[in-house]
Amino acid sequence: MSLFFMLAAAAASPVAKPVPSAGEIVAASPAADWQTIAPQDLLVMDLASDAAGRPRRVVIQLMPPPFSQGWVGNIRKLAGAHWWDGLSVYRVQDNWVSQWGDGEGEDKSKAKPLPAGLAKVPQEQYVSPARVMSSQSQPSRDAYAPSTGYFEGWPIAYSTKSSWPVHCYGSIGVARDNPPDSGTGAELYAVIGHAPRQLDRNLAVVGRVIEGMQHLSSLPRGPAPMGVYANVEERTPIVALHPATEVPDLPRYEYLSTTSGSFDRYAEASANHREPFYVQPAGGIDICNLKVPVRRKK
Amino acid sequence: MSLFFMLAAAAASPVAKPVPSAGEIVAASPAADWQTIAPQDLLVMDLASDAAGRPRRVVIQLMPPPFSQGWVGNIRKLAGAHWWDGLSVYRVQDNWVSQWGDGEGEDKSKAKPLPAGLAKVPQEQYVSPARVMSSQSQPSRDAYAPSTGYFEGWPIAYSTKSSWPVHCYGSIGVARDNPPDSGTGAELYAVIGHAPRQLDRNLAVVGRVIEGMQHLSSLPRGPAPMGVYANVEERTPIVALHPATEVPDLPRYEYLSTTSGSFDRYAEASANHREPFYVQPAGGIDICNLKVPVRRKK
Repeated sequence: MSLFFMLAAAAASPVAKPVPSAGEIVAASPAADWQTIAPQDLLVMDLASDAAGRPRRVVIQLMPPPFSQGWVGNIRKLAGAHWWDGLSVYRVQDNWVSQWGDGEGEDKSKAKPLPAGLAKVPQEQYVSPARVMSSQSQPSRDAYAPSTGYFEGWPIAYSTKSSWPVHCYGSIGVARDNPPDSGTGAELYAVIGHAPRQLDRNLAVVGRVIEGMQHLSSLPRGPAPMGVYANVEERTPIVALHPATEVPDLPRYEYLSTTSGSFDRYAEASANHREPFYVQPAGGIDICNLKVPVRRKK
Repeated sequence: MSLFFMLAAAAASPVAKPVPSAGEIVAASPAADWQTIAPQDLLVMDLASDAAGRPRRVVIQLMPPPFSQGWVGNIRKLAGAHWWDGLSVYRVQDNWVSQWGDGEGEDKSKAKPLPAGLAKVPQEQYVSPARVMSSQSQPSRDAYAPSTGYFEGWPIAYSTKSSWPVHCYGSIGVARDNPPDSGTGAELYAVIGHAPRQLDRNLAVVGRVIEGMQHLSSLPRGPAPMGVYANVEERTPIVALHPATEVPDLPRYEYLSTTSGSFDRYAEASANHREPFYVQPAGGIDICNLKVPVRRKK
């Protein structure tokens, strides 16, 4: 059994001191380089237990301003109203998305009424008119945007005039119909395959999964082409989706500040792997492969 | 229920003829633009049926020359000897790989003996010294290589002097230990997440899944950090992995020739979505998002 990427600990050498790997840089980073995620910015989705009775908890972090805030506000209202409780993950399409919300929503006679006060959010909110900058840039070439970087721990793409959040593995977005302002935030998807960057600026990225991603990515796929389950029994029930502030036993989470020196070194080491396993470092890394480290706070 | 990407059929318009979408271009492409895949280049992996008794068949296409042929030769021998029959998928790591072979291989007293005559393949075979060119290039910017394109239906990266196959969703590679010539082809992985392009030129890409990918991507994840199942009962048994020439009921498969005009138009439409759903085409697409269409022959 060959476990590639189970890298051997760098052997002590009398000649040269081993260069730390990306993982070693993250592990050795000082506590001051980590930013606590406010529980107010987290949601907790508890899916029905799996066939073996194991719980399936998905922890979601919401996108910060200035991005997608119309939809994020709607999602806070929906979670506060426990609108998703009793609904389901009704669509899982391979190398694409798992989607949840009201599986009966297209039939107006069966659709679950939405809470009052949700905003109609215009397509202009897919992009921030400000060119939000962090002090770290991500210099690798990108097929979809003039440049990419990080803002408060989130992967972002830029043009000379604007910036927008990108679709990576684990990103959460707002499903919609053809009119670009038709998504409320009630129907959400998480990316479970190769980053569908063609969706950037076409759908609202509103958050990401920071724990429990495997509970969305390992669900049985629905039939092609859309992944909608043929039978409602195949859907995965959502027991509850609530604001994290209602979950007393939830751990605290933190991310490696994307303006820290540790993140800089982590990015450099990720683009230029020097571990003994590698024979040819790439010299670059795309924005979705350079994942911002997130962990439970000790 | 909002099913984004369930695009409405383009409405007949008295003003402008709708531009065909990428999917419509593929569907309308002439039969002459499709290349049959020789059954000699296919393997069939039958996993144990799922909990509901449904069969799980994975169809694998092997990499053509000039790439990775030392390992491909070993894999043909292993399949011909039915070496994988009765072994398992023993490792599933989220956003990374599903890996199969001998789950007891690291314990020499329990390891299944390999068939005689497997080649020791040198790391030089990770890259072809020839700059293999197809007539189609993929002009979008790439974070990992000077340029990318397609060769006989496969995504390839190039430098000025060489070329190599890339790791995309569904790509199959040869697991190994630290020495770059330590992989035989007996332990294989399929990519089940965002393309781990940092592995290009560091591991041998030997094939891809052309049907049944969901049977590898939806398996329960093993525990972090490596995804190896804690209990052998959690492994997914391989009933048989055989050359396709031994499977009489197998459909024939074909791919859209990457030197055809249809593929050119498909690539252009994929980089510049004009369907009514899109409000902002990207103007580019990365090599792993522009998937080469593969289908059953009618």
